[in-house]
Amino acid sequence: MTEFDRAMMQRCLELARSAIGRTAPNPMVGCVIVSDGEIIGEGFHPKAGEPHAEVFALNQAGTRSRGATLYVNLEPCNHYGRTPPCSKAIVEAGLSRVVVGMVDPNPKVAGGGIETLKNAGIEVTVGVEESDCQILNEAFVHRILHRRPFGILKYAMTIDGKIAATTGHSSWITGEASRHQVHQLRTACDAIVIGGNTVRKDNPHLTTHGLSEQQPLRVIMSRSLDLPMSANLWDVEIAPTIVFTGTNSNEAVQNHLTQQGVEVVNLGKLVPAEVMKDLYDRGLNTVLWECGGTLAAQAIKENCVQKVWAFVAPKIIGGKTAPTPIDDLGLEKMSDAIELTRVTWKAIDSDLLIEGYLDRNG
Amino acid sequence: MTEFDRAMMQRCLELARSAIGRTAPNPMVGCVIVSDGEIIGEGFHPKAGEPHAEVFALNQAGTRSRGATLYVNLEPCNHYGRTPPCSKAIVEAGLSRVVVGMVDPNPKVAGGGIETLKNAGIEVTVGVEESDCQILNEAFVHRILHRRPFGILKYAMTIDGKIAATTGHSSWITGEASRHQVHQLRTACDAIVIGGNTVRKDNPHLTTHGLSEQQPLRVIMSRSLDLPMSANLWDVEIAPTIVFTGTNSNEAVQNHLTQQGVEVVNLGKLVPAEVMKDLYDRGLNTVLWECGGTLAAQAIKENCVQKVWAFVAPKIIGGKTAPTPIDDLGLEKMSDAIELTRVTWKAIDSDLLIEGYLDRNG
Repeated sequence: MTEFDRAMMQRCLELARSAIGRTAPNPMVGCVIVSDGEIIGEGFHPKAGEPHAEVFALNQAGTRSRGATLYVNLEPCNHYGRTPPCSKAIVEAGLSRVVVGMVDPNPKVAGGGIETLKNAGIEVTVGVEESDCQILNEAFVHRILHRRPFGILKYAMTIDGKIAATTGHSSWITGEASRHQVHQLRTACDAIVIGGNTVRKDNPHLTTHGLSEQQPLRVIMSRSLDLPMSANLWDVEIAPTIVFTGTNSNEAVQNHLTQQGVEVVNLGKLVPAEVMKDLYDRGLNTVLWECGGTLAAQAIKENCVQKVWAFVAPKIIGGKTAPTPIDDLGLEKMSDAIELTRVTWKAIDSDLLIEGYLDRNG
Repeated sequence: MTEFDRAMMQRCLELARSAIGRTAPNPMVGCVIVSDGEIIGEGFHPKAGEPHAEVFALNQAGTRSRGATLYVNLEPCNHYGRTPPCSKAIVEAGLSRVVVGMVDPNPKVAGGGIETLKNAGIEVTVGVEESDCQILNEAFVHRILHRRPFGILKYAMTIDGKIAATTGHSSWITGEASRHQVHQLRTACDAIVIGGNTVRKDNPHLTTHGLSEQQPLRVIMSRSLDLPMSANLWDVEIAPTIVFTGTNSNEAVQNHLTQQGVEVVNLGKLVPAEVMKDLYDRGLNTVLWECGGTLAAQAIKENCVQKVWAFVAPKIIGGKTAPTPIDDLGLEKMSDAIELTRVTWKAIDSDLLIEGYLDRNG
């Protein structure tokens, strides 16, 4: 693999990313076809039900594909789904070399597409910019391997570890740039989950605030259904909203919500794991937990969180009983603490965004 | 001022820093004398009662001082103290130029030394690398201006804002590199303050663990004097220890401590501000608060904290009632939070050290 291969794979990732937040349950895929050092075809998968990235690139390149090299960040599919297999289309187009970022994460099908290409005499290179390819589709990979959406817990705290004052007052902890960054991060998410308390307290919008065409699904978990009659989240013209509740909750509120277009789902057991199962069945890849400490702790305990986005604002609010980001996990010793891995951080104006993974089986 | 001037002033700061933690109540001062681009004399102030930096440098340069340039990070003194005024010595040595990093912080004497030099016909440049000079002696400056030691609050917390598990268990939050960094930071401090609870729970040493010859004074605030009979802090061979207590505390414990060489001080009002007053009277510049949330909050409320060193470890412990770094400050709204200024951060292995100032009048 050459510098040129890497550059072309980065271009695939760039193309793939243009559909961020819109491809679930599918991955983000970009494709580039190169002949004599010149890009002759490009494409990306825009959303489920539409053609794969390779199809767009092959169509654009046309007959010039013969003898050319195709780059794609994910192994081409090898099965008849809503579209014919891309491996077949590549063979038929007469490509002489295919460069693949990463193999299909599904162990049952991994390598099948590559095998088809090789059997047709095509030279195949696998693993170019693999780490970046894995990260771009980490949610899709998690979905395939664990049959659950990839969960991200996001919170903002003061430098003394609080997500609100003792009174519960919390606006704002971080600065404007961080809040803009949250809207940006939301564009990569298929759903945002909060608890009823956050609805009552903050009356949030949970949108990308104009940063994307498609809004994440807004999800509320509320056992009591003690929710306000009027709330920004009930305006489903802006974005769809689902309220998950238990089996014995207030019917009048349910009717009120339903009439406004909010979907109400009664779960036998109102817990994060059941919500994630439902969201998996709906085809979601990435679920963002923007909830308080109680729900956050429950989500972590039930392996519904794979990644953390912690914003830390350089201010002190104080408070012995002020809320903190994560409530009881049943960990008694500091040595039992859950270590984050692959930790990175960046400054966002005067705030810090710390990102890390919870590498336990999801 | 030239690049060369700046380089020489940085050399002064380097020299000054070699006495870190040992000069209180005096500042850290370094001095360099240059003739024809060559350093002919250097010196630093080693500790109170010993000669000033300028004296060492002048002695080393000898008669070559005539016509040379003298660099010093703090305005030369102009009064007879334990030593004759440096301004006089500089004039007598025949220097032709003096470069000063910053003026004397005491508004009553500021500029006096410079005035003496100018009146003697010496060319004086003031403010070279001034910001670095101010930072090096920020504690001394605070001491002079506010007649109190400079307070630093240090704590280590998990990424979910806890300084211990719900059980109180806290070792270790940060990694080995961060703990070494704490020992390093302690070398710049004249005293470390903790509460009785930390003695009972952690039995700390509060030393620089071999990183400096002189150990900070170890200070315990304990109203109850419900302290262990045996503790690392009672071994005053390692470092001196003072216990501040109220007026009605346990006499038997007081006697026991006194017999071991621990100084016990009965304060009418056992509060951080009174402790700081006592430590000021003892001539201390820098006091490090390594206490729990209750005492930390009290110290902040009483303006005994001017700077924060917050270590953040990328791990999650959870806990609704787990201790956090700073207890009640009486701030009800997030908009009332105390903003840190001049915030910087650095990675220490997998931990982060965030540093910032509380810019209120001390």
